Amino acid sequence: MDIEQFRNAGYAVVDQICEYYKNLEQRPVWAPVKPGFLGKSIPDSAPEEGEAWTVIFRDWEKVIMPGITHWQHPNFYAYFPSNATKEGILADMLAASISNPGFNWSCSPSVTELEILMMDWVAKMLGLSDHFLSTGPSGKGGGVILGSASEVALTIAIAARERAISHLAKSSPSPQEAQPEHVEPSAEPEVEDFNVEPGAPSGPNEERKRAASLARWRGNLTSRLVMYGTTQTHSIGMKAALILGLDFRALDVQKEDNFALRGATLRRALKEDIASGRLPFMLIATLGTTSSGAIDNITEIMQVALDYPSLWVHVDAAYAGVALALPHLRERAHLDAINSPCDSFSTNYHKWGLTQFDCSPLLVRDHSELTRALTVTPEFLRTKEGDAGSVVDLRNMQISLGRRFRSLKLWFVLRSFGLNGFRQHISTTMALAQHFASLVGQHGDLLEVVAPPQWSLVVFRARRAELSDQELDTLNRKFWDALSSRATEFALTQTVLPEIGFCIRMAVGSPQTEQRHVDATFALIKQCAEQVLSP
Amino acid sequence: MDIEQFRNAGYAVVDQICEYYKNLEQRPVWAPVKPGFLGKSIPDSAPEEGEAWTVIFRDWEKVIMPGITHWQHPNFYAYFPSNATKEGILADMLAASISNPGFNWSCSPSVTELEILMMDWVAKMLGLSDHFLSTGPSGKGGGVILGSASEVALTIAIAARERAISHLAKSSPSPQEAQPEHVEPSAEPEVEDFNVEPGAPSGPNEERKRAASLARWRGNLTSRLVMYGTTQTHSIGMKAALILGLDFRALDVQKEDNFALRGATLRRALKEDIASGRLPFMLIATLGTTSSGAIDNITEIMQVALDYPSLWVHVDAAYAGVALALPHLRERAHLDAINSPCDSFSTNYHKWGLTQFDCSPLLVRDHSELTRALTVTPEFLRTKEGDAGSVVDLRNMQISLGRRFRSLKLWFVLRSFGLNGFRQHISTTMALAQHFASLVGQHGDLLEVVAPPQWSLVVFRARRAELSDQELDTLNRKFWDALSSRATEFALTQTVLPEIGFCIRMAVGSPQTEQRHVDATFALIKQCAEQVLSP
Repeated sequence: MDIEQFRNAGYAVVDQICEYYKNLEQRPVWAPVKPGFLGKSIPDSAPEEGEAWTVIFRDWEKVIMPGITHWQHPNFYAYFPSNATKEGILADMLAASISNPGFNWSCSPSVTELEILMMDWVAKMLGLSDHFLSTGPSGKGGGVILGSASEVALTIAIAARERAISHLAKSSPSPQEAQPEHVEPSAEPEVEDFNVEPGAPSGPNEERKRAASLARWRGNLTSRLVMYGTTQTHSIGMKAALILGLDFRALDVQKEDNFALRGATLRRALKEDIASGRLPFMLIATLGTTSSGAIDNITEIMQVALDYPSLWVHVDAAYAGVALALPHLRERAHLDAINSPCDSFSTNYHKWGLTQFDCSPLLVRDHSELTRALTVTPEFLRTKEGDAGSVVDLRNMQISLGRRFRSLKLWFVLRSFGLNGFRQHISTTMALAQHFASLVGQHGDLLEVVAPPQWSLVVFRARRAELSDQELDTLNRKFWDALSSRATEFALTQTVLPEIGFCIRMAVGSPQTEQRHVDATFALIKQCAEQVLSP
Repeated sequence: MDIEQFRNAGYAVVDQICEYYKNLEQRPVWAPVKPGFLGKSIPDSAPEEGEAWTVIFRDWEKVIMPGITHWQHPNFYAYFPSNATKEGILADMLAASISNPGFNWSCSPSVTELEILMMDWVAKMLGLSDHFLSTGPSGKGGGVILGSASEVALTIAIAARERAISHLAKSSPSPQEAQPEHVEPSAEPEVEDFNVEPGAPSGPNEERKRAASLARWRGNLTSRLVMYGTTQTHSIGMKAALILGLDFRALDVQKEDNFALRGATLRRALKEDIASGRLPFMLIATLGTTSSGAIDNITEIMQVALDYPSLWVHVDAAYAGVALALPHLRERAHLDAINSPCDSFSTNYHKWGLTQFDCSPLLVRDHSELTRALTVTPEFLRTKEGDAGSVVDLRNMQISLGRRFRSLKLWFVLRSFGLNGFRQHISTTMALAQHFASLVGQHGDLLEVVAPPQWSLVVFRARRAELSDQELDTLNRKFWDALSSRATEFALTQTVLPEIGFCIRMAVGSPQTEQRHVDATFALIKQCAEQVLSP
């Protein structure tokens, strides 16, 4: 494809996207296809000779589109939103045109520097304190844009594990005697400080022996580490623990606390585990759980954390963090406690934050805890700026070497919407969720909201006064089947809440959604409820 | 931005990209900026009110471009290529317009199914055997497109660790007695089969005890696991080990073997480590090392692996794997041994394979080894198709939950170029590297090729007959400084090779590069050599 062919093809793709958004409402929300449908339209190997662009492009609509679930559809209320904006598309076009893996500053200085600047924009717009700024007084804050909250959880777990092991190794005469109560954070912990056979001979012949001894230390400590969350923490926590071979303990939460983790529950678990020889090293506190939008009591949690300085507190605000752009929502989100500060905070702009997937800013109060855990620099990756320490090479704050130019879309979005436009998007979609909750409330004979509506999420179920818990559960699984049969008209998802059972999630959040869409969807939901509740 | 504004903005971005490629040659290759340059042009927080698109877009050229290193420039020969194509840009535009996180099949069936189909296209075009096909006779092959070779190495290390621990736990009466020699792969290993206190009481009160016992098993085994590579293996191996808290052992390679790992070296290390109680669990064999393009002797390695069935052999062909599209290059790449089969194989289409970053296909001979290690399914991620087992949910074959629509660009590229066009790109760029090597060879008074040119990579240095090794090293560091001072004209990178020392890498691979570019770059390199060699 030469330059002029690309110009024509590019215009045609832009036109196609315009048509898509014009008529999006007419498309089925969930893709109405059966598993294996695509294999019928695509040959089983690549063609020997190149095909004409017009033929390839035609297949976008003809072959691919029937199997696309339209997350941008105004009636998509499943999972969490995955906002796309026109500014994000334009940014991705430009980023793709200069494709580069951005691992070192010199790979493209603008890629690294724009990301660092955007992290400060993010911290400030969400009301985070100076602790989290690259330009803050400590000079240690800042962060990095990762690809997902899963990647964030794993990255933090690695840094937290290294900090914990490093502290324990420095303060304990042997791994068996390591005790978290004795741990005090030190300014410059070094893994080299493992207490391995004091006075042991050094030299190349001793290297493998020493390595084996270090590995035993690490193995002993690692097998005792515990990561904490609650039964409502996203599975990214458990998956990070699984990946690292660590224990994840899901603490109980109560309906009466709106499914928030309380300080007393955490304190009890920490005491219990330390008494039985475990080593608590990390807690994921959630701001906006997936099942109900719940907010862990971060104020109480940070109080407990004061007594356990080796516990890394990460605030996973994947979904709801962007709502901190609205100052009146900050108190209920325990912003003061987050700013006390916790160790790390992240939110996904690619959910409710108007920015194309993927865009997960991760802010830390001490970025050297990331670089200490994640830096590996072979000769072929060295640069004079990196050697001089005059730049940050972002590969050292993440798992992968290569990285995409994710900050560009965030820059375009924040400039184009402005903070006011961004806040408008959050408050409009929250108002639509509130409107939906009130519609449910007006139909108490059929439906009920089961947890206080949080953010733009409403969790509800079908109800009938005389039913037992078990019967309600059965009823709602039938209700869910009925809702699923209308999947081309609207998209919802299901969950299970403690003390409640099976229920339905409606997450508003698309810039395409208007009140008429919520009203029309509610009418269909009501029909489904009437259908399963009819005698 | 409304639809018509987007249409105009989109056309303008397309025009901008056309201009970019028309005049790319005039731009400086490495960005000639100093650390911190960008902060001068960008405010320190997001604007309150939205800005006009024309203002934002103007800053692409004015603010961002000066800090972009042009990896698509015809004179970019640093690291490895990071190919961008017009087809890839068009795919990224479309993917951005329907942005979705694609974790489950139902999130967008086309996203999952196209990826599975493209993995088969990849396996077939590279000559991989049926073992690696999703449609192969075993029904167990296939794979997934990840974001980077780092992510691949980590994902494989997790699966390999779980396989090893599961086998050891089943076959050993206690962790202390676990021995890899006794390990035989079994059809359905289950981590639940850990031999924990036979006949121990069960029930909720025993759960934490059992968990602690499992953790001790895991801790003991994990601290003895060893991952292998060579001194030439990419740092992604060591980083995966670091992340998982495992030992990485870099085996020596020799210049006389062209820096390839030999079977005897591997066998010696395995025996030695097993004798000292370590548990070998994984080897990264490289097809095309970063420093010299070296090819580990996979034929000998797979022979050794026959005697160590618990050793997972992963072939990291990040750079050179795409060259297997050319049948005459397959024998030197030990394709028969790869197809014997090894456990996993990956290559980065986003390097030399004409596809925008990121695109790292990972093929495995048994994808259930990935899903067994990586599946976590909370209620809110369940789907009826997933529950029924009628679909693959790709989140279970990777670290993150969310994933981008990466297969689209690969589909566009492979269809548009066809296999012939793809092979043409590989052979043209290889011929240009060969041409560069012969220019070096014609100037033996100044320069020498230090390792046999492999693929499209030439490693060379300045030389003078009478110099000692140490003097040569000093000379070449000076040579590198001279080359670096011309960084706006061409981009190279440095490395250090065993028995050779400091040397320079020239990696051809951009579709923009023509012979005139290589000739002009060589003339400048020659000037630099003359300058440092002049008395």
